[in-house]
Parts: sequence; C-alpha cells; structure tokens
Amino acid sequence: MVGLPARGKTYVARKLTRYLNWIGVNTKVFNLGEYRREMAGPHCKHSFFDPTNADGMNVREKCAELALEDITKWLNDKGQVAIFDATNTTRARRKKVTDHLAKQGFKGFFVESVCDDNEIILSNILEVKVNSPDYQGVPSEEARQDFEARISQYKNFYEPISLDNDYDMPFLKVIDGGKRFLMNKVEGYLQSRIVYYIMNLHITPRAIYLSRHGESMMNLEGKIGGDSDLTPRGWEYSKALGEFVKDDMPADLKVWTSEMKRTNQTASSIVDRPIEKWKAINEIDAGVCEGMTYEEIQDQFPEDFARRDEDKFHYRYARGESYEDLIARLEPVIMELERQHNVLVVCHQAVARCLLAYFLDHNSEELPYLRVPLHTVIKLTPVAYGCRVEQFDLKIPAVNTHRDKPKVVAVSRTLEDALETVPDHE
Amino acid sequence: MVGLPARGKTYVARKLTRYLNWIGVNTKVFNLGEYRREMAGPHCKHSFFDPTNADGMNVREKCAELALEDITKWLNDKGQVAIFDATNTTRARRKKVTDHLAKQGFKGFFVESVCDDNEIILSNILEVKVNSPDYQGVPSEEARQDFEARISQYKNFYEPISLDNDYDMPFLKVIDGGKRFLMNKVEGYLQSRIVYYIMNLHITPRAIYLSRHGESMMNLEGKIGGDSDLTPRGWEYSKALGEFVKDDMPADLKVWTSEMKRTNQTASSIVDRPIEKWKAINEIDAGVCEGMTYEEIQDQFPEDFARRDEDKFHYRYARGESYEDLIARLEPVIMELERQHNVLVVCHQAVARCLLAYFLDHNSEELPYLRVPLHTVIKLTPVAYGCRVEQFDLKIPAVNTHRDKPKVVAVSRTLEDALETVPDHE
Repeated sequence: MVGLPARGKTYVARKLTRYLNWIGVNTKVFNLGEYRREMAGPHCKHSFFDPTNADGMNVREKCAELALEDITKWLNDKGQVAIFDATNTTRARRKKVTDHLAKQGFKGFFVESVCDDNEIILSNILEVKVNSPDYQGVPSEEARQDFEARISQYKNFYEPISLDNDYDMPFLKVIDGGKRFLMNKVEGYLQSRIVYYIMNLHITPRAIYLSRHGESMMNLEGKIGGDSDLTPRGWEYSKALGEFVKDDMPADLKVWTSEMKRTNQTASSIVDRPIEKWKAINEIDAGVCEGMTYEEIQDQFPEDFARRDEDKFHYRYARGESYEDLIARLEPVIMELERQHNVLVVCHQAVARCLLAYFLDHNSEELPYLRVPLHTVIKLTPVAYGCRVEQFDLKIPAVNTHRDKPKVVAVSRTLEDALETVPDHE
Repeated sequence: MVGLPARGKTYVARKLTRYLNWIGVNTKVFNLGEYRREMAGPHCKHSFFDPTNADGMNVREKCAELALEDITKWLNDKGQVAIFDATNTTRARRKKVTDHLAKQGFKGFFVESVCDDNEIILSNILEVKVNSPDYQGVPSEEARQDFEARISQYKNFYEPISLDNDYDMPFLKVIDGGKRFLMNKVEGYLQSRIVYYIMNLHITPRAIYLSRHGESMMNLEGKIGGDSDLTPRGWEYSKALGEFVKDDMPADLKVWTSEMKRTNQTASSIVDRPIEKWKAINEIDAGVCEGMTYEEIQDQFPEDFARRDEDKFHYRYARGESYEDLIARLEPVIMELERQHNVLVVCHQAVARCLLAYFLDHNSEELPYLRVPLHTVIKLTPVAYGCRVEQFDLKIPAVNTHRDKPKVVAVSRTLEDALETVPDHE
C-alpha cells in the first residue's frame, strides 16, 4: 500500500485480504503501525514521525525491515499474498520493498490511495484513527489534532507514484476514494482480479440484509435440497418479511432471490421493490443426495456421510457441489453486492453461510457450521474495518435445520454417532 | 471510441460487441467510415480529412449526425449498447455526442486509445488499413503513405481526453495498447464489465485449440450427459491428441479440461504441458434427462423434447441447465482465455459450441447447432478483426453425436418427426 495516513489504506488492505482468503487465496496483512507500537510503545506523538527526528526514523526503519522479513517468511511458507499496510510514501522506501521482494523471487504490486477530499479524510480520521490503539485514552479532539500534525510530517516528503517516474512499475492508483483510477502494467490473473475488486468497492453507507426462504415442505420432513413449496408457516414468514421490508428497510432496496420456488414464494409478499432472480444464489447442489433425509444418506452412503463430517468445506456431493464450489459460484454475487447499495438477499442455508463468512471473515472450518436460523433477517452494516451484525427474529415458528459437527467423524463410526446431531423432523 | 486512426479503435469496438452480444447484451457498432464511404464514395484521399477542406468537413459532419441518429434509434428500439466507432478527436465533437445522447436520456462512456508505439501503429496500418475498403485496388505502399498523411491531418487537431479537461466525464483511456489505463467515473455494472473486459485483452499473437473429449461409452449408446469412460476408440484419440500436441502445438501451451472423466482421460496422454481442471467447463447439465437416449427423452418427456427443439438456446432441462445458463457459467473461462496465450481446451459438445460462438460471432439461434465432431481439433488464430479457423481431423473413427433441428417442432408432432434427426447409435 502507498499513501498518506487516513487515505483508506487499511480499509482496502483488510477488505482485499477478506476477499482473497474467501476465494481461497491465502492472504495476510502486515501493518507497519503494529510493528511500531510493539517496538516504541502505543503512544507516539506526531513529532515521532518528523523525518528530522533521528530516533524516530531509526525505529521506523527497523520496523519496516522486520515487517519485510516477516512478509517474505510468510510467502515462503504457506502464504500466497502478503499486503504491506504502510505509508511507503517515498520512492526510496518503495525501491527497498521492490528490491527485497525481487531478491526472494516475489512480485510486488503497489496500490496507492490519493485523496484530496477533506470530507473523506476527516471522516476517516474521526471514524478510525481517533479510536486506534495509538490514541487509547486520549481525548478525541487532541487525537485529531495530533493525527493531522502527523499527516503534515508525511506530506513534506511524499512522492506520489507517477507514470513519469514509475513507468515500468506495476501499480494501481486509487484517486478520490475510487472515483478515478490509474493502472500500470497489471500482470496475471491475481493482479487483474485485485484491480477489478478494488474498482468495485465503494464507501457510501448502506446495509445488506440476508434471509433464508420461509420454512419449506422439505424442511419439515428433514429432507435436504429439492425445490419444494413453502409450508403454511413459511407463507406466514413471507408476509412478515413483506411487512418488515415495508416498515424497516430503505426505499431504494433491491431484492435478490435464487431461482428456486421457496425463495421466490418468500419474496412474493414484498411490494414496491425490484426483485431479481440469480441462478448463482441457488442452494448447494446435493447431487445424488438431493431430496434425502440425513438418515437416508447415512443409510445409503454412510462413508460419504462421514467424509462430509470430516471436512465439510471441501466435501463434494457425488454429482453435486462442495461449499468450495459454492463460493466460486457466489463470487460474482459478492462482487455485485460490493458495487450495490441496499440489498436484501433471500437465499438458502449454505448460501447464507458463504455470504456471512465473506462479510464477517470466518474461515473455511467455521463457515459450514455458521448458524442461520429460518425466519430471521440478518442485517449487515459496514463500519470502519468490518460489519455490524443485527438479527431480527420475525417470531414465526419454524423447524431447526442446523446440524452441528458430530463428535465422531470416522468412517467406522456407529449409526448413533453418525446421527447424533441430526435436528428433529417429521 | 476516441483516438487517432490506427490506434485499434475498431479492434476494441468489434471485440467488445462480440463479447457483449455473447453475454446477452444487445450491442451494435456504428462505424463512421462506413457512413463516409456511403456518402462520399470508397476512395477519399488524405486531403479529404484536412480540417481546412470545407467540403470534406461538411460531409464528415453530416455523417456523424446520421450515425448519431441511427444510434439513438437503435437504443430506443431493441439495442442496449451502441458503440460509436469514430475518431471523436476534438472536445467539440465529444460534447456533441454527449449532448445528443443526454437529450434522449442515454449515458455516454468514452473509450480512448492512445498509443505512441510506432511498431504497433505500423502493424495496424499494414494488417488492417491497407486492406480496408478505403484502399481497394491501391498499391499497399501508396495506401500506407496516404494513410499516414491522413493520421497527420487528425494529429494537428487532436485533443486527448484528460483529467484536467474531462474531470466529470466517464471514460477509460487505454494507453500503449493496454499496458496502462486511466479510468474516470465508471458507473454501473455494464461499464464496470466493459472496463474489466478491455483490461484483459491483449494483441500478442497466439492460438486457441478446442477439442471435445474422445468418444465415450455413453456416446456409443446414444446417451446424453453422465460421466462415463472413454471407449477404446476414445483412448486412441487420446493418444493421437497427445502426439498432435507434442508435434504441432506451442511449447508454452496450457491445457484446460473439465472435471469429468472423459475430458481428463482424453488429456491424460499429453505430456510436458500443464493441465488444469475447470468445473466451469463441465458439459451442460441435462438435469432429469442425464443419462437418457433421445428416444427415452421423447418417450418420457415428449413435451419438453419439443419445446427444446423449438428454442434450444433458452430451453432449460428440468433441474438442469440451458445453453444460456452455460454461457453465464463459461464467462470467466472466456475472460481468462482472453488473458492467456496458447491454450488447448478439452471440453464437451455444448461447451465447445458456446466457445466457438464467442470467437466466431454466431448468434443464439445458430449456437446450439454448430457442428463440433468428435476426434477433431479446431484451431483458432486471432487475425485482424476475427479468427482464422482450421480443423484437424485426427482420423480416429467415432460415432456422430450431432442432432440437427427437426423440421417439425410442435408439441403435437409424431414420434417419427420427433426422432427424425437423432443420430445412429448402438
């Protein structure tokens, strides 16, 4: 990352990390501020960042070296992408980074954020910086003033990336918080995805709502998959959701459903909001197990049932999908959610788990066990570096469809062990 | 489009049109040169383009007006995107375009190509321009000189798009044939896809090879879908393909297969080339008809069988896919094919039809009936504004799996009419 303080570098670094990990690219942020706090303590005043302050400069130089060493260690180990979240505002520093990476055979790609919009900068300072570990216990006005003085220290020596000076260096320059972009020598699939992702981000406040379909006939029977109708209680939820949208969701809300009957029926009580069907939002395809109860799967495919419990994220149903497949299918949905403003996604248990894992940064072990009860709306509101989560239980009874990971996952397990966590059903 | 002559505007305009139509966005190019030839005849010398030549200017002004009228007519009718392929090199002209569109309620987005690489420009002049209708019957050296003089006429009055002057205008500036990009105020899904697509184009010479898997057990039995093994003749093709790759394909070739047994077995004789599996390349999912013969489908689902014959592109198998779905699934494959160099795709009949339709610009009616015989390699070589096609029959016998559109597609048709075009099988 490159840019003055309070230009949204950490925001981009963290979102990008979340996205890349979600699509299966092992990614980690290395935040220089954390190295500095580790070495120099939590409360460095702005004078510490004065380039004429030799002690400060020494510490910061040492921190950068440590971070770069950790970065190459990570890349040589299991890491695929390391994001160096620091100002890197001078050409000399950027050359150091490039040289260090090149020596180890890694490619560098610079993402610079330049922004002269004082409103964006101030809101960033107030929202993020005065709450940062650097200013714990410091009154917010004092923190703001110190932070602005710190920015000034950097400004004096800032050398922005430019085509004149960096003609052969791969970079993406994000201008004015994503209104404009300059990109140079983007190479390979990953850089091209990174650029496309950052291009699609926006920071306008909004909310994303997730809901599963109302209770379906097959939910009631404890069967997975299929394309069944709602139960009477499922229709009640549909009506309650229609009311909830009318009363509590923004007027410019868009509604997305899957192409399955149960999500379409659930959304059918929503009025005055555009509804769009996405095939990509369809429930995970259980292949040969479609329409079976867990008991039937255990009966007919006991080995498969155990292997799925062992590694639910990677297990692929015969002639069906794995959670990993589902994420590949949902990637365009996430990309479009990033671009959009207020959206309600009426979807399915496995789909909701994948979407939640993206927004709340759950790993692939947690993901297939996330709790997404029926007849509940989950509201996600982007804040600072994450999302605020609220759950609204619309108080319409429904069966439980959540099956926890059983204690025993060995293929040789008993029938009781295999069925231990199967939820009650008809 | 914006840019001096020979900067690849027509290349980008035509590729983009092909891509957008393929993903289902109704798109048409309006080439100003064609309007000019219509009005002023095919042979305008460079002096015609001299801005001090009042007659020439009048004709060109009139042509631009006609084209803009046709553009808004198209957009008001069934068109979703119109691409105005002209130089549009002055701010005054661009303002005229913007104003004309705004009056009708349409959005403009400018794509400018700037390039100072003389090698690219010269190769463009030699490859495309001296063969253009403007220079039919003119010796190529004379054509080149006249064309370079025409470029000079434009250069004197060229006002490139810039952030200084066009801060609020949505645009993408393609610099040096795609090495660098500047983009401003990209808005909405379509603009964002257009930018991503253009970012991923390259003009390095290469070839794309398509092959279906070798003959499978289910091909022999006349059954569709499934996941069967190769027949002995299928394995012979696998070996022949391995030899063909070794002897006749580039050393840096990458091989992509689907995740199905028959494509993996087919590629298994290929050595020294990286092989990658794509789930997106899997054959069209025939849902409830998987593993059936056409006779069985007619027997069990005669109505569906007729409806598919009536509109094969849009027909979706129950619990399966349509060709339209398949294109949505293949979109990332096409995007990645654009980015890559030499690739061999070992795929399936319906998949190969979709990929061919993209490269050879077939519409959705032709697409599901394109002939892609077994045991044949199709080589696509990008040239000028299209692709050269070569077919290599590797001379291993195989069944025919192509079923033409029957003459009668009405649901009420007879059994004979329904089965009229079913190919022979065991």
